[in-house]
Amino acid sequence: MVVRYEAREGGGGRIVVARLKSGSDLLEALQEIVSREGIEAGVILSGVGLLGEARLRNCKSLPDEFPITDVNRTYLSFRRPLEILSISGNVSLADDEQLVHAHLSLSYVEGDEITVIGGHLIPGCTVHGFAEIMIMELEGIKMRKGFDEETKTLQLFA
Amino acid sequence: MVVRYEAREGGGGRIVVARLKSGSDLLEALQEIVSREGIEAGVILSGVGLLGEARLRNCKSLPDEFPITDVNRTYLSFRRPLEILSISGNVSLADDEQLVHAHLSLSYVEGDEITVIGGHLIPGCTVHGFAEIMIMELEGIKMRKGFDEETKTLQLFA
Amino acid sequence: MVVRYEAREGGGGRIVVARLKSGSDLLEALQEIVSREGIEAGVILSGVGLLGEARLRNCKSLPDEFPITDVNRTYLSFRRPLEILSISGNVSLADDEQLVHAHLSLSYVEGDEITVIGGHLIPGCTVHGFAEIMIMELEGIKMRKGFDEETKTLQLFA
Repeated sequence: MVVRYEAREGGGGRIVVARLKSGSDLLEALQEIVSREGIEAGVILSGVGLLGEARLRNCKSLPDEFPITDVNRTYLSFRRPLEILSISGNVSLADDEQLVHAHLSLSYVEGDEITVIGGHLIPGCTVHGFAEIMIMELEGIKMRKGFDEETKTLQLFA
Repeated sequence: MVVRYEAREGGGGRIVVARLKSGSDLLEALQEIVSREGIEAGVILSGVGLLGEARLRNCKSLPDEFPITDVNRTYLSFRRPLEILSISGNVSLADDEQLVHAHLSLSYVEGDEITVIGGHLIPGCTVHGFAEIMIMELEGIKMRKGFDEETKTLQLFA
Repeated sequence: MVVRYEAREGGGGRIVVARLKSGSDLLEALQEIVSREGIEAGVILSGVGLLGEARLRNCKSLPDEFPITDVNRTYLSFRRPLEILSISGNVSLADDEQLVHAHLSLSYVEGDEITVIGGHLIPGCTVHGFAEIMIMELEGIKMRKGFDEETKTLQLFA
């Protein structure tokens, strides 16, 4: 089987714990936290809480040639209570800007049925009540994204 | 866009790895571990395994005024094999008691179809075979929950 | 309620960040990374990215007596774009071999509907474009799996 990758190693550093308040945009809040704290390399350790609305991006088709663009994506909006089940992702430097890249999963109920949705985190996910987030800074790793010839996008360690 | 939050920073400490055994209640086990180990501030790094039954809480409606109460929640029970896909959450001190706050996602199959469910972890999730859990203690952060006037509930750093 | 477990404690060590490239088998790549880096005890901190196909294992029934075997499992394959929402799991030593044990959740879209699937990570999950993975080594904990009389399988700290 094929195995191809780029890897770097370092260690764990500072951990920032934040409670986001009602009305906050989840992605904007994460971006502001890493900006204010000066985090240029990090990992999202945990995220739980409640949203009142969400907007998610998913990939619906694969192009014959890279890059993947908006032609290949579906953007969907949800307006209802949504439990945040998980937030996964990291903090890097893309074009010298701090970038939070995160995917999340969310649950909601209708009658006696639970549905779970998820996708790439984009603006439009609004906290209702609270969300508890943890980000750990990475030490000794430069999480820099450069232009990758293969995928025609900015990628880690390219 | 709105961004409002409270944040604290510290570092990572001890990591406890536990294998829960058959019949154990998942939340009760997590509570007993943090109690026995004296963890008052922590993050759940990982959780995988299998449940034989589950009970989950989800938010079904948002009240005109806080707090969110049981009128706004749905409690659902499941009796079947359920893979634990993720457990997210943290350990704090609420009214001087160690509190595990966690959300989880679970999968099951019927015929050739996989369904994923999730929600807030409550008592009634029973381990079948095993579950492997990791909790990291936080150093230099007081994860204290106090009464928050806005949400009318106990919240981190309120 | 029943609470039974085995636990060990240690601390966090090295963190390896890897960007897996197109065509890579997700599990094989994780196995090769821990092999090449000599990681015998670890936790998967994060995983996000995109798959072009997936194969997942779920438990469909519980046997009257342990062990759980393939009679109790369903293997399902998917050939479409799948966002990696989360990867949870750990690295241990089973029969002196480094073992990555992971569960994952994935999302896909059809029209305006998002579906989330998940299960135990097995070979057959192929990265498309990229996947960003983080593994933290554990220090001071021997993550050794031995034969467990109760479940009739290899288990942590048995």
